[in-house]
Amino acid sequence: MAVYEVRIDLKEGVLDAEGKNTLKALGLLGFEVESVKTSKLFRITTDDDVEAMCERLLANPVIHDFSVTKVE
Amino acid sequence: MAVYEVRIDLKEGVLDAEGKNTLKALGLLGFEVESVKTSKLFRITTDDDVEAMCERLLANPVIHDFSVTKVE
Repeated sequence: MAVYEVRIDLKEGVLDAEGKNTLKALGLLGFEVESVKTSKLFRITTDDDVEAMCERLLANPVIHDFSVTKVE
Repeated sequence: MAVYEVRIDLKEGVLDAEGKNTLKALGLLGFEVESVKTSKLFRITTDDDVEAMCERLLANPVIHDFSVTKVE
């Protein structure tokens, strides 16, 4: 079977609360950081249609962009 | 400032509950999938020490492996 990596990013302008909190926490630890953005990665072993999986389950089109890369 | 991508993976043998649930949900939708693994990605704009950020905040060494890639 093939292995795909699906990356789920928040669209520009959508609040990344986890990123904002991580930025604040890094600052409190003394690190100098300008910005932090978070994404989700799914590593999927399948021969089925991964784009369709993103559209039907993995990504929310209102707030997410996704990209699919075949890695194996 | 430089931009880094930090990838946080669960170590081999650590239960990936989100991956297991995603696998089940994809199956219920009719997709044929062998496995799903999830990871977390942080995109960090900084000139500070990103490996140290992973060790102190972003990754839990008991359950996580991390890798840092400079992207810009």
